[in-house]
Amino acid sequence: MSIEFWFEFGSTYSYPAATRVSRLLAAAEIPLVWRPFLLGPIFSEQGWNTSPFNIYPAKGRYMWRDMERTCAELGVDFRRPSVFPRNGLLAARIACQFSESPWIAEFVRGVYVANFARDLEISEPEVLAAVLRSLAQEPAPILERAQRPEAKAALRAQCDRAAEYGIFGAPMLRVGTELFWGNDRLEAAVRWHQEHPK
Amino acid sequence: MSIEFWFEFGSTYSYPAATRVSRLLAAAEIPLVWRPFLLGPIFSEQGWNTSPFNIYPAKGRYMWRDMERTCAELGVDFRRPSVFPRNGLLAARIACQFSESPWIAEFVRGVYVANFARDLEISEPEVLAAVLRSLAQEPAPILERAQRPEAKAALRAQCDRAAEYGIFGAPMLRVGTELFWGNDRLEAAVRWHQEHPK
Repeated sequence: MSIEFWFEFGSTYSYPAATRVSRLLAAAEIPLVWRPFLLGPIFSEQGWNTSPFNIYPAKGRYMWRDMERTCAELGVDFRRPSVFPRNGLLAARIACQFSESPWIAEFVRGVYVANFARDLEISEPEVLAAVLRSLAQEPAPILERAQRPEAKAALRAQCDRAAEYGIFGAPMLRVGTELFWGNDRLEAAVRWHQEHPK
Repeated sequence: MSIEFWFEFGSTYSYPAATRVSRLLAAAEIPLVWRPFLLGPIFSEQGWNTSPFNIYPAKGRYMWRDMERTCAELGVDFRRPSVFPRNGLLAARIACQFSESPWIAEFVRGVYVANFARDLEISEPEVLAAVLRSLAQEPAPILERAQRPEAKAALRAQCDRAAEYGIFGAPMLRVGTELFWGNDRLEAAVRWHQEHPK
């Protein structure tokens, strides 16, 4: 049984989680399935037009400070981005289309580093192209394929599935039918998997 | 330097945190300061008239399942209460007035067990009296003192301080000026304390 890692490129805590999830699951010999999705539609359903960290200032102040501490503890570069949340639509379409490519883990991390360590505009194709080039991938055919109607439909279907599964935030780990929410709960998801083998 | 444990008797995740925080801090030789407060006024400021777990159903469903798992893993009794959130005002007034009494840790745990394992109405003085009697404390003088004007004012002042500190949820650990939110972050608060001695 694999563990699904549901993440959104605009989500802060998805960043440290994405940088450590593949190492953690590999060490436990658990297959990892990358599940990019969008929080926008889910937040809209709750009546929010932006991140709750923007809507609730005390929560937002806490989160930014906590991100600094969390990334420092993990040795992960972090700089508070000048725009939050950034639009991760195109990056998510790429990750959805190429979720089984050998370079997917490095692409995911590269996009997060662009957003949360280098303050780059990840909605711009050129920024994503630079990430792909850094992985020795030719950007043009990947960007082209990610913008085809079937790629758009695939990500939409994945977002619908997130809502069906009761996913309300990111990162979210799914182990069988169990959900574990947050960078804090990666280890709990692995323990659950080990204690409930199928 | 001590660690302040800010908690609300109606808060679900405060329950497992309260059952393990004193052991955890004692093992690290860090003094613990009990800081009961009320989330109601803080939620009101955010436009909520109940717990966000009631307002956002997917988040609520997740939390109840996660509480079952978390308490099972910690070996802490748990039964989903028939009323949520319960009003912890009187219990908080007692805990605020008697926060340095030798029985405070056991009183806090006893009230949480009443609410989240025995489904008892913790707003009723008789339920709190039973907790006090189980600790060999005479309830009448304690309940009387907790309802004096100065006791009410003390808890109000503590709630004001919570808001000033930027506390927006519970449980919250305060180490110097740093905040750590949630049952998941107790260990992080202890590590922070150890790495930043004053």
